[in-house]
Amino acid sequence: MWMSELAARSGLPVPTIKYYLREGLLQPGESVGATRAHYDDAHVRRLRLVRALTDVAGLRLEDVRRVLEAIDDEGLSWHAAVGAAHTRLPSPSDGAIDPEQLRRVDELLARRGWELSPVSPHREALAAALSSLDSLGRPPSDEHLDTYAEAAALVGRKDVTGLDETDRAEAAEHAVVSTLLLEPVLLILRRIAQENASRELRG
Amino acid sequence: MWMSELAARSGLPVPTIKYYLREGLLQPGESVGATRAHYDDAHVRRLRLVRALTDVAGLRLEDVRRVLEAIDDEGLSWHAAVGAAHTRLPSPSDGAIDPEQLRRVDELLARRGWELSPVSPHREALAAALSSLDSLGRPPSDEHLDTYAEAAALVGRKDVTGLDETDRAEAAEHAVVSTLLLEPVLLILRRIAQENASRELRG
Repeated sequence: MWMSELAARSGLPVPTIKYYLREGLLQPGESVGATRAHYDDAHVRRLRLVRALTDVAGLRLEDVRRVLEAIDDEGLSWHAAVGAAHTRLPSPSDGAIDPEQLRRVDELLARRGWELSPVSPHREALAAALSSLDSLGRPPSDEHLDTYAEAAALVGRKDVTGLDETDRAEAAEHAVVSTLLLEPVLLILRRIAQENASRELRG
Repeated sequence: MWMSELAARSGLPVPTIKYYLREGLLQPGESVGATRAHYDDAHVRRLRLVRALTDVAGLRLEDVRRVLEAIDDEGLSWHAAVGAAHTRLPSPSDGAIDPEQLRRVDELLARRGWELSPVSPHREALAAALSSLDSLGRPPSDEHLDTYAEAAALVGRKDVTGLDETDRAEAAEHAVVSTLLLEPVLLILRRIAQENASRELRG
């Protein structure tokens, strides 16, 4: 298909598509002559993915590029691909980390028997988030944290079980899409659950 | 305390504090003469809250202002205060909403017996998130959604039960802080759980 049809099928204006091409977020089409190129379904699909990552997952374009590179890189695991997206997670450098909170994170992981890869940013990120709550005088109790870990175990297991493993690139895209785009689903459901629990408790 | 001590106690540079004062994110101090003002612990506390909302919860300053107004407004429920923060949630306008996905949301809510207030944006926001996953060919199954709702119910109930109700302003601040700042905690734990479930499944 030509650019005009790609625009129609993806619902995006031509200048936006050209911008994504220049920025390397969309693979080039097949050149036909000096100024025209031919596009296919893979382009439509990639454009939808870019929009979902920016609009729904809230990623900045530089993070989208990192995620796409990871999806396209056969050598990377999907954890690495997903990890390439900072997305809604605060990075460990966002706040001061209290050693006491690192200890709490380690204890929480130990209680669940969870292990982290040595390059994982999650231990520090979690400690930073807890440090922040603590500095506001609102540290969650261990019991509160354990409930969160239990809920996370529930959804994490389900996410991973549902992954299609037939094709590596396909699986990486699926994993990234599910991990990032199901985040808002979980957070919205949590707010709905809070409202309903609050109504039940207080009438 | 003077501005210099407020800077030391909050860990923020004086120009940043002055910026927050001009933007109405920090209540004015008590004027002492024409150019000096006196600050107290409430100022230190408010500065920590502003930083937590921007750095950890990832709110833009205009959203922080809305949240603070809601916390300070005695007439608002804490749901309204929390609702004032778009934060990590996509707004319903972010994507096209497929009526089929609205129907799925309604069915999910009915299965759990959950109700939404008439002004709640969550029904549309959830449908928009699902529409986006669907347009990428990755709609979660009803079973997957039910697992998410179950996890959300678990944490939502815990969040609400832990709320201190003694003082309204205090309770509103606690609710906002917990709701927003525990979001990254839940999302980080989900990633850790995914990694561990993946290792278990695939060795």
